[in-house]
Amino acid sequence: MAYNSFHSRIPEPALRRLPWYLSYVKLLKKQEHTHVSSTQIAKKINVSASQIAKDLSFVDITGKTRVGYDIDLLISVLEDFLGFTKMHSAVLFGVGSLGAALLSDSGLEQYGLKILAGFDTDNSVIGQSINGVPVISADSFLETNKKLNAQIGVLTVPSGVSQQVADYMIEGGVKAIWNFTPFRITVPEDIVLQNTSLYAHLAVMFNRLREHE
Amino acid sequence: MAYNSFHSRIPEPALRRLPWYLSYVKLLKKQEHTHVSSTQIAKKINVSASQIAKDLSFVDITGKTRVGYDIDLLISVLEDFLGFTKMHSAVLFGVGSLGAALLSDSGLEQYGLKILAGFDTDNSVIGQSINGVPVISADSFLETNKKLNAQIGVLTVPSGVSQQVADYMIEGGVKAIWNFTPFRITVPEDIVLQNTSLYAHLAVMFNRLREHE
Repeated sequence: MAYNSFHSRIPEPALRRLPWYLSYVKLLKKQEHTHVSSTQIAKKINVSASQIAKDLSFVDITGKTRVGYDIDLLISVLEDFLGFTKMHSAVLFGVGSLGAALLSDSGLEQYGLKILAGFDTDNSVIGQSINGVPVISADSFLETNKKLNAQIGVLTVPSGVSQQVADYMIEGGVKAIWNFTPFRITVPEDIVLQNTSLYAHLAVMFNRLREHE
Repeated sequence: MAYNSFHSRIPEPALRRLPWYLSYVKLLKKQEHTHVSSTQIAKKINVSASQIAKDLSFVDITGKTRVGYDIDLLISVLEDFLGFTKMHSAVLFGVGSLGAALLSDSGLEQYGLKILAGFDTDNSVIGQSINGVPVISADSFLETNKKLNAQIGVLTVPSGVSQQVADYMIEGGVKAIWNFTPFRITVPEDIVLQNTSLYAHLAVMFNRLREHE
């Protein structure tokens, strides 16, 4: 909330670029640099220095003339702004191939996403535990989420049921849905929807590859 | 090649919408529908009917007045156009948490991506096999890829080495890089680059969630 009281809403393209800057300045820190200018970032990231300065103006940091931004401060401010330092509770629906893979990816936790439970309707996976995360019957979600209080729902179910499962997650109190299915679900206005279709990205890559043939 | 001889280059936003249509018409097929109009798709997908008709004009299919598109034909033409029916050979670099998760996701193969081998520099994973995919020493990639002939390189290494590993994959003959790291790598013009940063998507979701608080 603090950010939004003092800053205007950051446009999504700018928001999407911030992790690039973070990733690069973390590399500089490893190389024992202490300061970085937007011009320096620009050279490496292929975004103009003025765009970078503008993007960073949404974050609570100011660079100094000649020396640039303090790297430690920039990292901590960016991680904070991006939400990576706060743990966000999540549940995952659909413990199939991709769902199980995401449960196994402990990297998500380093970026602030803690998946507390996986839900499925398939008795052969219910009762299992993947990377320490229990897989529970989807039927018990409404009851279970009163305790878990997960705000984020990761959606990795078969496309055919993605809308109905999304509705069910929202009924259980989920405020944001991370949709990995290729299905275009709709959600009420007060619910955050993030689509990440790996298969759509694959399609773009295959198509561009064919053009280069 | 055939597509590009007869059709103009499809814009990326249109290309990214095609998997949504595919996913919806596959659902209709399951429900035993035989035909679908762009108006029908529009209602479900939240894209205008005229936009859908325009997007589909890049694909080799025409709808019939009143009855619309033949669903079986539309599915097969879309899957073909998106490259899902052809198997594309890939290698993966960086068998850490996300890398291992992607190797475990057999769903990718259903969409035309066959990961033939994982490469790493860590002796504790080299020699292992994940979901039937062998993990090999990164040192032997140049030699190994003469036989594998993988066109696509999946990049899931730590950010700090992503540029150098990308360069190395290209040296070994890779023509497209699917970059899962948050690092902004650069590639020569004739190399296809697809960025899929899960962490950037997380950041967008966290930020929007905070605004709704």
